[in-house]
Amino acid sequence: MNLDPADQQLALELDRAHVFHSWSAQATLKPMVIAGGLGSTVWDFEGNEFLDFSSQLVNTNIGHQHPAVVAAIKEQADVLTTVAPAHANLTRGKAAQRILARAGNTFSKVFFTNGGADANENAIRMARLYTGRDKVLSHYRSYHGNTGAAIVATGDWRRVPNEYARGHVHFFGPFAYRSEFWSASVEEESARALHHLRRVIQAEGPTSIAAILIETIPGTAGVLVPPPGYLAGVRALADEYGIVLIFDEVMAGFGRTGSWFAFQALAEQEGGLVEPDLISFAKGVNSGYVPAGGVIISPAIADIFDDNVFPGGLTYSGHPLAMASIVGTLDAMEDEGIVDNAAHIGRDLLEPGLAALAAKYPIIGEVRGVGVFWALDLVSDPETRAPLSAGGVGALKAALLARGLLPFTADNRLHVVPPCVVTDAEVERALAIYDEAFGAVGDVD
Amino acid sequence: MNLDPADQQLALELDRAHVFHSWSAQATLKPMVIAGGLGSTVWDFEGNEFLDFSSQLVNTNIGHQHPAVVAAIKEQADVLTTVAPAHANLTRGKAAQRILARAGNTFSKVFFTNGGADANENAIRMARLYTGRDKVLSHYRSYHGNTGAAIVATGDWRRVPNEYARGHVHFFGPFAYRSEFWSASVEEESARALHHLRRVIQAEGPTSIAAILIETIPGTAGVLVPPPGYLAGVRALADEYGIVLIFDEVMAGFGRTGSWFAFQALAEQEGGLVEPDLISFAKGVNSGYVPAGGVIISPAIADIFDDNVFPGGLTYSGHPLAMASIVGTLDAMEDEGIVDNAAHIGRDLLEPGLAALAAKYPIIGEVRGVGVFWALDLVSDPETRAPLSAGGVGALKAALLARGLLPFTADNRLHVVPPCVVTDAEVERALAIYDEAFGAVGDVD
Ligand SMILES: Cc1ncc(COP(=O)(O)O)c(C=O)c1O
Ligand SMILES: Cc1ncc(COP(=O)(O)O)c(C=O)c1O
Repeated sequence: MNLDPADQQLALELDRAHVFHSWSAQATLKPMVIAGGLGSTVWDFEGNEFLDFSSQLVNTNIGHQHPAVVAAIKEQADVLTTVAPAHANLTRGKAAQRILARAGNTFSKVFFTNGGADANENAIRMARLYTGRDKVLSHYRSYHGNTGAAIVATGDWRRVPNEYARGHVHFFGPFAYRSEFWSASVEEESARALHHLRRVIQAEGPTSIAAILIETIPGTAGVLVPPPGYLAGVRALADEYGIVLIFDEVMAGFGRTGSWFAFQALAEQEGGLVEPDLISFAKGVNSGYVPAGGVIISPAIADIFDDNVFPGGLTYSGHPLAMASIVGTLDAMEDEGIVDNAAHIGRDLLEPGLAALAAKYPIIGEVRGVGVFWALDLVSDPETRAPLSAGGVGALKAALLARGLLPFTADNRLHVVPPCVVTDAEVERALAIYDEAFGAVGDVD
Repeated sequence: MNLDPADQQLALELDRAHVFHSWSAQATLKPMVIAGGLGSTVWDFEGNEFLDFSSQLVNTNIGHQHPAVVAAIKEQADVLTTVAPAHANLTRGKAAQRILARAGNTFSKVFFTNGGADANENAIRMARLYTGRDKVLSHYRSYHGNTGAAIVATGDWRRVPNEYARGHVHFFGPFAYRSEFWSASVEEESARALHHLRRVIQAEGPTSIAAILIETIPGTAGVLVPPPGYLAGVRALADEYGIVLIFDEVMAGFGRTGSWFAFQALAEQEGGLVEPDLISFAKGVNSGYVPAGGVIISPAIADIFDDNVFPGGLTYSGHPLAMASIVGTLDAMEDEGIVDNAAHIGRDLLEPGLAALAAKYPIIGEVRGVGVFWALDLVSDPETRAPLSAGGVGALKAALLARGLLPFTADNRLHVVPPCVVTDAEVERALAIYDEAFGAVGDVD
């Protein structure tokens, strides 16, 4: 790496002068400069290094600058970067084949998009056209993307200033630690959440409902691993009422859970594989090295568009450079056992390590997760479970950054989401940093 | 190029088995295989070459595989492919700077997206938040993208199965050859279209209207270069009623018209530069080498988000690899005079060449365009201007492909949209092929 410290200032200046940022007020932003990265580490132009336990936006599952993926991109760049979706492209076919091989043979086709939002837009479109119905049910605790329908399917605060799409209904999913259902156990939470969903379906009118769209494990909302039986129960409700079930695996998919897909990671607790009718994906499929996403489609839905026009599309659907990065990523993840590593890291290091931290610091109200997909629910009072204040989270974030760890925080939570390639040694180092930082901020709120 | 003819079959097989295609019924698709390209030429695995007068989806303005852009992508791939939008990235700042330098100093910031649809989604979001109003007015003859709001802003048939967004109103733009306003001249068409727009604004209620969103030159709808005075008139109406004016330059921008932006190309006929408040872009900004798009923002709108949160964003906003391809593209276009070449090709070759074809073949009802952005309006009867049948267009398309030219057709039109780098010799060759193909299909309808 050839770094010019003068570029640090230039990067900041150009950013502040010309770049309009997402989800924020522009005036007070003090963005961190990132100049480069490798594996689980990023650095700035002054040579400061950070352990990336954010995976950026929880997308660099294969780590930064994986040489096999970079090589695949460069090789395709030399051949053909872009082609219209209507034309057949070999790399696109190979990418679809590899994705389907991992999703399992319940699925037959892939529609490619540029990211997670348009993946959900097109999954919703398919469900509406397949059922001839309008409504889409989704969790309040969810994020599905920033475009017209995806942002209104979203349950969190980001939906509210953007409610210009119709046909969206929200319901509460299970969250035992902060139950909406007055439940006393995880089993009760699962059963009551399913009862609530059934009542919402009945009250909305089952024949008006095209799709239930849920994150298999709600991510940004707090890594809300569903209690046993919930997914199987949702699948049963969808079947009972003829509703298309869409799993949004944009954040949970492609290794993050220690399985290729979260619904596979949860098969054991559900007493068997619970499969959706459509899967939306992005992020981990190529770690975001080139913008890409898509929908994995079951034959029942794909087939109705054999003779009916599918009224959706985009200029960069199945973009060769993006497809090459998918092929490179999925091959490398398989060859190098990267998904297994994520499972090992979760089981053998993060689960015990984070539990030990929680035992030590009362500020950690709950630890939830699987694989390299964890959240610490931070509280100002372990009894009342009152969420830690923004100031408290900010202090923790600063303490982590000061110790060389790039964290991911959301609301009152610290998400522990390193790349799937993270090493044992890096996790040990991160756990030590978390320990120090929690020690430094104490129980101050 | 190292081509394996066996890959031709493999590409087709994988495509048919696993790839779900845009805007079509899947069963009868017979996609053309594209293996590689250079400049204005593409080829398949059997070595068949085609002059690409489609620019794919009118996006490869710099031609296929421009070495400077490929080099910029590979260089960035070695440094850092992806980074979260919240962090500052030097390449992103440079891309924003270069875009703004071309748009002119009426604009101050750039918000980056993955393509044209999400560019329009975010432009609409900004307009709504800026005005505190809901409605978006757009042309019936338009395409703005496939996501929730963009597809409902779209005027063409693709909107109809997708009307799940609220707050959209459509109106007729000017189109003298097929007037909706019973006008007898181009001047009358312009005046009457403006009268119609004013009446729609008044009838919808001016204080309910956030934005007028129009393609500066509607592209897919038929390269409908607006008559003199129309853009200036729309700007005046927007000002009169406090409405945000958005120009969708996704297809028309970045060289296609022989200027950087279509609104600049039309300055002369409008008696001065007519500038919008927001510009959405994609395609030509990097010729689609990496998925990218965005919104160019005027200070009045950017500034309200200094202290107010902008509620929009996406994982790959300002993606370094995409940004590097923008920097590489815009620098090469400038260094090599590529925009000037597009102007020269339009003025000196396509305008006279296509006019000569129209004089020879009565099937060509009208020729419209500028730069490398032209449409031939095909008719079965020059008197009634009855559109050529789908069968007639299909025969022409086949005749062109058989002669080694990859055409762009839409409805009853042949769009002549080569890359901006197309050479005089290639245009001469294409004109000869068009001539032969029109001769071969005759006036058969
Ligand atoms: C579960 C989920 N769905 C969809 C999205 C939207 O993806 P994108 O930002 O690529 O549009 C995200 C992004 O964070 C996500 O976490
Ligand atoms: C004028 C215009 N706007 C928007 C779009 C949508 O762009 P994308 O396909 O990248 O979403 C297009 C695509 O053809 C277009 O021509």
